[in-house]
Amino acid sequence: MAGNSFGSSFRVTTFGESHGPAVGVVIDGCPPRLPVTVEEIQGELDRRRPGQSAITTQRREADQVEILSGLHEGLTLGTPLAMLVHNQDMRSGDYEEMKTKFRPSHADFTYKAKYGIRAWQGGGRASARETIGRVAAGAVARKVLAGVGAGGRGVDIVAWVERVADLEASVDAATVTREAVDANIVRCPEAGTAEKMIARIDEARKAGDSLGGVVAAVARGVPVGLGEPVFDKLEADLAKAMLSLPASKGFEIGSGFAGTLLTGSQHNDPFYDAGGRVRTRSNRSGGIQGGISNGEDINLRVAFKPTATILREQQTVDEEGHDTTIKGRGRHDPCVLPRAIPIVEAMLALVLADHFLRQRGQCG
Amino acid sequence: MAGNSFGSSFRVTTFGESHGPAVGVVIDGCPPRLPVTVEEIQGELDRRRPGQSAITTQRREADQVEILSGLHEGLTLGTPLAMLVHNQDMRSGDYEEMKTKFRPSHADFTYKAKYGIRAWQGGGRASARETIGRVAAGAVARKVLAGVGAGGRGVDIVAWVERVADLEASVDAATVTREAVDANIVRCPEAGTAEKMIARIDEARKAGDSLGGVVAAVARGVPVGLGEPVFDKLEADLAKAMLSLPASKGFEIGSGFAGTLLTGSQHNDPFYDAGGRVRTRSNRSGGIQGGISNGEDINLRVAFKPTATILREQQTVDEEGHDTTIKGRGRHDPCVLPRAIPIVEAMLALVLADHFLRQRGQCG
Amino acid sequence: MAGNSFGSSFRVTTFGESHGPAVGVVIDGCPPRLPVTVEEIQGELDRRRPGQSAITTQRREADQVEILSGLHEGLTLGTPLAMLVHNQDMRSGDYEEMKTKFRPSHADFTYKAKYGIRAWQGGGRASARETIGRVAAGAVARKVLAGVGAGGRGVDIVAWVERVADLEASVDAATVTREAVDANIVRCPEAGTAEKMIARIDEARKAGDSLGGVVAAVARGVPVGLGEPVFDKLEADLAKAMLSLPASKGFEIGSGFAGTLLTGSQHNDPFYDAGGRVRTRSNRSGGIQGGISNGEDINLRVAFKPTATILREQQTVDEEGHDTTIKGRGRHDPCVLPRAIPIVEAMLALVLADHFLRQRGQCG
Amino acid sequence: MAGNSFGSSFRVTTFGESHGPAVGVVIDGCPPRLPVTVEEIQGELDRRRPGQSAITTQRREADQVEILSGLHEGLTLGTPLAMLVHNQDMRSGDYEEMKTKFRPSHADFTYKAKYGIRAWQGGGRASARETIGRVAAGAVARKVLAGVGAGGRGVDIVAWVERVADLEASVDAATVTREAVDANIVRCPEAGTAEKMIARIDEARKAGDSLGGVVAAVARGVPVGLGEPVFDKLEADLAKAMLSLPASKGFEIGSGFAGTLLTGSQHNDPFYDAGGRVRTRSNRSGGIQGGISNGEDINLRVAFKPTATILREQQTVDEEGHDTTIKGRGRHDPCVLPRAIPIVEAMLALVLADHFLRQRGQCG
Repeated sequence: MAGNSFGSSFRVTTFGESHGPAVGVVIDGCPPRLPVTVEEIQGELDRRRPGQSAITTQRREADQVEILSGLHEGLTLGTPLAMLVHNQDMRSGDYEEMKTKFRPSHADFTYKAKYGIRAWQGGGRASARETIGRVAAGAVARKVLAGVGAGGRGVDIVAWVERVADLEASVDAATVTREAVDANIVRCPEAGTAEKMIARIDEARKAGDSLGGVVAAVARGVPVGLGEPVFDKLEADLAKAMLSLPASKGFEIGSGFAGTLLTGSQHNDPFYDAGGRVRTRSNRSGGIQGGISNGEDINLRVAFKPTATILREQQTVDEEGHDTTIKGRGRHDPCVLPRAIPIVEAMLALVLADHFLRQRGQCG
Repeated sequence: MAGNSFGSSFRVTTFGESHGPAVGVVIDGCPPRLPVTVEEIQGELDRRRPGQSAITTQRREADQVEILSGLHEGLTLGTPLAMLVHNQDMRSGDYEEMKTKFRPSHADFTYKAKYGIRAWQGGGRASARETIGRVAAGAVARKVLAGVGAGGRGVDIVAWVERVADLEASVDAATVTREAVDANIVRCPEAGTAEKMIARIDEARKAGDSLGGVVAAVARGVPVGLGEPVFDKLEADLAKAMLSLPASKGFEIGSGFAGTLLTGSQHNDPFYDAGGRVRTRSNRSGGIQGGISNGEDINLRVAFKPTATILREQQTVDEEGHDTTIKGRGRHDPCVLPRAIPIVEAMLALVLADHFLRQRGQCG
Repeated sequence: MAGNSFGSSFRVTTFGESHGPAVGVVIDGCPPRLPVTVEEIQGELDRRRPGQSAITTQRREADQVEILSGLHEGLTLGTPLAMLVHNQDMRSGDYEEMKTKFRPSHADFTYKAKYGIRAWQGGGRASARETIGRVAAGAVARKVLAGVGAGGRGVDIVAWVERVADLEASVDAATVTREAVDANIVRCPEAGTAEKMIARIDEARKAGDSLGGVVAAVARGVPVGLGEPVFDKLEADLAKAMLSLPASKGFEIGSGFAGTLLTGSQHNDPFYDAGGRVRTRSNRSGGIQGGISNGEDINLRVAFKPTATILREQQTVDEEGHDTTIKGRGRHDPCVLPRAIPIVEAMLALVLADHFLRQRGQCG
Repeated sequence: MAGNSFGSSFRVTTFGESHGPAVGVVIDGCPPRLPVTVEEIQGELDRRRPGQSAITTQRREADQVEILSGLHEGLTLGTPLAMLVHNQDMRSGDYEEMKTKFRPSHADFTYKAKYGIRAWQGGGRASARETIGRVAAGAVARKVLAGVGAGGRGVDIVAWVERVADLEASVDAATVTREAVDANIVRCPEAGTAEKMIARIDEARKAGDSLGGVVAAVARGVPVGLGEPVFDKLEADLAKAMLSLPASKGFEIGSGFAGTLLTGSQHNDPFYDAGGRVRTRSNRSGGIQGGISNGEDINLRVAFKPTATILREQQTVDEEGHDTTIKGRGRHDPCVLPRAIPIVEAMLALVLADHFLRQRGQCG
């Protein structure tokens, strides 16, 4: 009801404010007997950790995860998996001005309006630190998906930075690897464009400004039949997953907005017999038809706005509603996209793991 | 779990196949003592009805709604409102070929793969007839929103066709009216562009082909504070609502994908004191910040692909997985956008009514 | 949220007031390809129908069910099954006095207090006619359970009247059959006690009074492993199911209240090796341990109070809160227990079907 | 889905095994701006703590609670409240035999059957330590209820031990106080019976055996209108809440099983005008009519079986299914009732707080 949970069968609940004692997550509904190690989860968290490169925030957080429950001798018990990360590098001093003023395009004003109270330091619950729980849970969701699909080859999920401002990379979604993505700090698998992106972000950082862009993602090896036909269409749950991320402004599945320029005869994906397996010759559907996966790659794109935190003076109002100005201070990401990669992957994994269990429940 | 329900507090469940006895909806959680008439609901259904103009499907359905429960002397009881529309103009003959062959980019293949069975006539549950229940429920949701907001002036919801193929209208979201939208059969409030759109759709129809485009929508007068901060962000639930519609491929809130080309200093919406009310000078946030409404207009856009049903021969496979061809037959919409307008409005109303009740429950 | 749905995976939503156009149910999450006929569902409804014997209400309702969706050539589609019964024999005249006065121990007062409005004719939503939807859904749930368990022998559910007022039957839960239960109109499988019960109920009816009692039920052949360990223990969901029935006041699983008089050494159920299957020598656990079925018979008991409707003058208040009197009129059940049998069985089937699908989803 | 959450609007999720690192709870949907202190929560936990008296288990756990999120300068934020208790006094050695043998009437066998794995030390997730999260959440739920009701006098919740084995106390539910309950270690507010109960429990403890009994509870000052009319009747949710407690076997609301011996004319509660407020002269309804609170005291009773852990040799099977014997070892409660008091109170508070928020959401 209050929106801190996601998923039906594989259900995650996150908690925690940026400047409270801890952030974390509880997973309910995880299948039993999955091998899970703290190292795997830590590995994913390290990919979203602040301070990992010159173009991300310099806030230093070790973000060491503890598994509090649900695991027994390295295997999941089928009971809730609770995971915790204590907050460490909290400089409330950086945020003193936020105590009385609302930062433009942040959640300060709306939280105050909604709740009549807000944890003003660092965004509180609206901080991107909340996504730590999502990434930790996503690492477990991947384990659910590991044995899924024809021949148990598992589902393969990769996200990457496709565009920063107007710098766009051309990436083959069918073959891109996580290694290629992580080969540079901006997480764009096309080396030449990546270099330009890094330079552009660095420029923005020096100017106290910020940039946005587009993250693309693919899920390969998804079995046929995941997704529910009406409100919980697979693309609907994916859209919700992605628009629930801080700073996201748009979502596309398959051909997306560009597909609207085609005619039906151009857009339809013809079926053919691929040696006993039904496949489509094109994939403008993005791997989903009628809300249900058809076995082709799931392709999606997410728009992220430029970071709202900028180190410039801006017009705003204070808590009394009077006009004033505010100047961003402290550490921030001049571009959220590189750190958004593991988060987008986690959300994609959460949606697929949930729908895998739902499908198994109803249809056996 | 099986995805035929939407919403938490104002919860709708739709049912029905296109060629079964009836389609309908049950609303659970409707506030008591709202005045609701069958005429109001019928009015919305008439806007989505097939056969209403030369550029929509010629399937003739009166789509007369019956209210089965939840209403007493014109007022809601607070108990479930069940509404029903019997199916009438069912020419199964049109669909004989579909019995054994999968239509490209339709749900035939995925339903069969998921369930091992499908109601092959006319798309069954995947038919857009399912949206009748959404539109009926949306009409009730509007009643919930009617008394909401400062001074009880209510929430005002308008959707329109912004683009068909590459024909784009320029519409002022702040002032557009439903009357202007309904002034022509393509539901684009810019008369000149509307005319071109109609001609283009007619062309496609004659060619046995189809077109896609973009629907835009606005909600004006939304109170501050709706939306939940993490997974159930208002834009996340809106994205899910829209991507749950048949043929939708993309979603944008506020600045959307275009906003990713701006810098933070260009993109942020400065707050100012508007005579005692906090407002923003620009609205790239689309009326939502941190997942919560800020009182500005909510602006969104939805991409609809060209209709999958086309009257041309296409490559496909049959139920045995063998290559074959299929030729669309029967009646279809060469462009779904005009009839999508009341459906997009309904989904927008459902999301806002639900979040209004959720906010009232938690925060009083 | 508003409580008209039950179950997680096999989820039913009922709707309808006693004097509105219809009552009905939507089942979401039903597995596909189950054979379901309207006759089977009608058969269960006939067992709960009013007017079936001298000791039940003389209200005459054919209660003919229509299946509106979810079925295709006799098999479930996996999509929502909507079922409807139109109300027929509605004599509002019988209820004129209820328009302004609250019947003691009925829901008239609390509905008015909660909603500020009530469908005063015949109890509206609080009428036992609501249970029609439950019984129809229960008949489908039985189909889910039909193929379940070792060797696919299915789950066998039987309920019976164990006690009316102080007339108690002694019934062997391990062997009692539905045929024995339905052999007499009071649905007590012990013929001698049944006769006395019928006489006693008839006496009460003549005196314009009413009686209560206890219904017992058994589920045989339940597979091991159903039920969730914490809040959704199998007995917890059963308790909720039964206490959600009109007029129920108590619930027991296994040894129940009587078991509290034993010591642990007397109460514990020793395990033993029953030819390769783990069984217990006694069954004070009632087939559930730690919230999870252990493969033994599930035994439960439900207390039903004497019907609140009596044909005598009673003290009450009117809608303005002034003291007055009311005299029951119209047709009523002098004892709800005989007609409660198919309803208790339905709720038991709904809980088991739901947990079967939940278990399959999480644990495969 | 996997049953570790409870409630709709005020939703708690517990986690943790008895011998894992920690147990805890996340509350989602808590209203903002409630004053909550760690001391209040600790106070409730101290009432359920092991080792608090001679007749409870000697396992020593400080059970110190930490609040990880959701609180800001002593007020709730409206965001998730996560609370944690680390496990300390874990003597796995006591449980070595449990590694390979199933304890009779415990959850060992069913967990293994359900999940294919179990945390065999001390019951794992089935341990009563899980209720720590419930009690902590219940303390917050009380804060929600503190300002509720006519004149904001709040809801008053008291539970007590009414019966141990056949030793029954006679307690006036209308006036009993928590102080009277906590005045002795068995938590029976009738001093004479309490003394006998303590002696009887001590006897059982010395004999390596255990006792059961009945807990009664009352909620006073509950506003009219809480509870949903059909499946989520207030008594249905209470029944589920209570049957979800370890060792509970039965539930009664109001007149319960005894009420089934009365006739309708004896059982009905006449309404009367109590100086402008509608009240009932008797309260066999237990404060709930038609599933909705009527403003009278809510009275309920819960049956708890004798503790399954006994220090005697018992017949059982091992993990291979072979017959063997097991002898209880270690520390246990010879009677769970005294420690069940704060847990029953917590569940009662959780149900009422949840329904208060639900009612406010739907009906304003």
